[in-house]
Amino acid sequence: MAGNLEAVLDALDEGREAALARLFEILKIPSISTDPAHNRDCAQAAQWCARTLNGIGFDASVRPTKGQPMVVGHIQAGGADVSHVLFYGHYDVQPPDPLDEWQTPPFDPCLKEDEANGQVIAARGASDDKGQFMTFLEACRAWRDVNGCLPLSVTVLLEGEEESGSPSLAPFLEANRQELKCDFALVCDTGQWDAATPAITSMLRGMCSAEVVITGPSRDLHSGMYGGPAQNPIRVLAGILGALHGENGEVRIPGFYDGVRGPGKEQLDQWNALAFDPSDFLGQVGLSKPAGEAGHSVLEQLWSRPTAEINGIIGGYTGPGTKTVIPSRASAKLTFRLVPGQDPEKIIAGFRTFVEKRLPPDCTAEFLGERGSPAVGFDVSAPMFKAAAQALEEEWGKGAVFMGCGGSIPIVESFQSQLGMDTLLVGFALDDDRIHSPNEKYNLTSFNKGARSWARILDKLAALQPVNS
Amino acid sequence: MAGNLEAVLDALDEGREAALARLFEILKIPSISTDPAHNRDCAQAAQWCARTLNGIGFDASVRPTKGQPMVVGHIQAGGADVSHVLFYGHYDVQPPDPLDEWQTPPFDPCLKEDEANGQVIAARGASDDKGQFMTFLEACRAWRDVNGCLPLSVTVLLEGEEESGSPSLAPFLEANRQELKCDFALVCDTGQWDAATPAITSMLRGMCSAEVVITGPSRDLHSGMYGGPAQNPIRVLAGILGALHGENGEVRIPGFYDGVRGPGKEQLDQWNALAFDPSDFLGQVGLSKPAGEAGHSVLEQLWSRPTAEINGIIGGYTGPGTKTVIPSRASAKLTFRLVPGQDPEKIIAGFRTFVEKRLPPDCTAEFLGERGSPAVGFDVSAPMFKAAAQALEEEWGKGAVFMGCGGSIPIVESFQSQLGMDTLLVGFALDDDRIHSPNEKYNLTSFNKGARSWARILDKLAALQPVNS
Repeated sequence: MAGNLEAVLDALDEGREAALARLFEILKIPSISTDPAHNRDCAQAAQWCARTLNGIGFDASVRPTKGQPMVVGHIQAGGADVSHVLFYGHYDVQPPDPLDEWQTPPFDPCLKEDEANGQVIAARGASDDKGQFMTFLEACRAWRDVNGCLPLSVTVLLEGEEESGSPSLAPFLEANRQELKCDFALVCDTGQWDAATPAITSMLRGMCSAEVVITGPSRDLHSGMYGGPAQNPIRVLAGILGALHGENGEVRIPGFYDGVRGPGKEQLDQWNALAFDPSDFLGQVGLSKPAGEAGHSVLEQLWSRPTAEINGIIGGYTGPGTKTVIPSRASAKLTFRLVPGQDPEKIIAGFRTFVEKRLPPDCTAEFLGERGSPAVGFDVSAPMFKAAAQALEEEWGKGAVFMGCGGSIPIVESFQSQLGMDTLLVGFALDDDRIHSPNEKYNLTSFNKGARSWARILDKLAALQPVNS
Repeated sequence: MAGNLEAVLDALDEGREAALARLFEILKIPSISTDPAHNRDCAQAAQWCARTLNGIGFDASVRPTKGQPMVVGHIQAGGADVSHVLFYGHYDVQPPDPLDEWQTPPFDPCLKEDEANGQVIAARGASDDKGQFMTFLEACRAWRDVNGCLPLSVTVLLEGEEESGSPSLAPFLEANRQELKCDFALVCDTGQWDAATPAITSMLRGMCSAEVVITGPSRDLHSGMYGGPAQNPIRVLAGILGALHGENGEVRIPGFYDGVRGPGKEQLDQWNALAFDPSDFLGQVGLSKPAGEAGHSVLEQLWSRPTAEINGIIGGYTGPGTKTVIPSRASAKLTFRLVPGQDPEKIIAGFRTFVEKRLPPDCTAEFLGERGSPAVGFDVSAPMFKAAAQALEEEWGKGAVFMGCGGSIPIVESFQSQLGMDTLLVGFALDDDRIHSPNEKYNLTSFNKGARSWARILDKLAALQPVNS
């Protein structure tokens, strides 16, 4: 049974204020999953999500894990012979630091007038991912309010560890395989091509992370009493990390590019035809020259080339003033963005070898926090991709772009490898949303038209033959 | 008028407990000069020093500066035709972090039994420099208690910014030149050759410091959305610092070694004749292979070769877990140990150029906290050096070694350049005192025999012709 789409869209338009008020409720909860000090906030956010799903008509509950809890909810379609989809989002957010760069407090959401974007919702998580997943829930709410039921059977899975490597996700999918296995998955955690052009993301880089701690002297030393003969672990670490990239921006870990499958000519042609201005993209963040591999376009560097990034480094004295210390240890956190064909375990092993080969006498390296998930790519000629593209075009008045994405959404790889599901990635984030940075925002238009877009997508998907039937 | 030295030495032996109690009083004050949060503690330490000097018979007062205050006290010799000496020490200490590595609280001094050293005084500043300067004050106290006066005229200058680059010192010397100009200076802030062998330090490395902040993107970026084309300032900083040293341990800043005057053959022969075991020296701090310039002995690397040390580095996310950020900035603190012939300003300028030449497009470098003082070396055939060496030999039963020192005591250079005074550097610190590190200690023997040594030195110096008369 399909429903009355036009009435759903009208209901979404009429209910905008209430929907925004609901979003503000969840934005107020500082659910920072990477910091144990915020465990209670994560639990509170999970409870809020379960309550909200139940209020829409789902049968939802908070499900404990070894880390932050999951939220799972189910609702049956009004009719038979329709697909059962799994919608995924995450209620956790990145740490807000540096706090002093926020113009408004990160967990006190507000509407602000933005010169380029009109009204925007300002808060940590406004875009990534609370604002995004709420577009789907609001579409479900309106569908059910208007039609008494949803046009598809929907299971919602909301995770609380997406920003901290999703350690509980794979075990949870494994343990709840029967409950979570659907025909395919929907994820709202990606971006549009631009503010006017919707997009479906069909390639996602994978990611693996590593932390390395270099130890030299057995204790901190005075640089006057030992400086010269004593090995300095900051110097060693800088030397190793300084050798990580070659002159042309390539990563110098042996075997790093083994197996990399570049995008086909057709895909490259499509990307090259996009109205993309590298100067503008980089200029928005104060840069001008692409720092990735020479010989690859900026879109390739972002979507189809792997990277090695140093995300953090610390060693020695970093307080005010001077301290003439040779520290015992220095450490760095790295992440590697992966593309199809790369094996995260081999990349991590290659990094270890790269470090160990460069260790001078008397230094040791300890490796922590190693985790990884490979990249994924989908066949966009499948019916659900076409249906979603058509729905987006009807809402936005412009054809949807099939994009790559430089970011990693490990869940998509897990859905494929663990539950055998493809994923339809539709999102309404914009490049200037400042996710993971101070002053994160989500355009009010993204929020409102995002919900309308999902209503249209649900309608189109309900009209398809069930994928696996 | 000389005094009764033997009675003074007896008084010191009898008064050991009271002297230790006085030392504990000043060790309890956390006078960390580099951290503005401890400004009140520095002021309190200065007041304690002035009270203590007045209690010995000095005319002493706390003297404000733009930074931490100075303490100055004067006392006239009992007789005429003797030298007037300026004694210098510092009441400020290094920060105690990392706090969790201290076995006893850094500012709660106590006596501990130490396998290698017998009883030791455990506290931040026990050796550097509170324990050391108190050996001189206790010698003065006993001299005056026994003889009613001191054998020399003494001015005491206690500084509160030695551990934070002594910014107020040069202006203070300049403004109080008449009051502080003496025949020569005594400083107790150096070490012995070993626990049984006293030493006079006749060469001191200079030091200059610099902090560099590299800025890339105008804000922190998400490594998924920007990783590849966006320049990462941690990568840039690591690349620059990783290039600072060559394969043979040499510093690669152009002109770094210009003008360096090595020690003469005689001095090198003396050093080579010392019973010095590089393996043991490095082994005590968990190292085995000298990391300084190839072709120079460990003692040369410490005493007569310049260095570039990275004392601290920080950038990006350094909290628990992972944050996929490309930070806007990364920074490092460096110090350069200098030897005679090097000009601190040229070294700092060379470092700036070294950094700026390696900056990729879109990155800027900001330089902070640049300060420097050159190295110094003395002619040890002068009478005061001979007299002090004889006094030390009488106390310790072993000839005093003329040493170099890898550390920097900027005051010594200031005394030379601003007040035209040479400095007699006698100290009782040991290599295992862990100054600037957790669990700093000062041997109880160093404290007790240090005070006796100064009593003997005062006696010998009083017997000399006044230096400048």
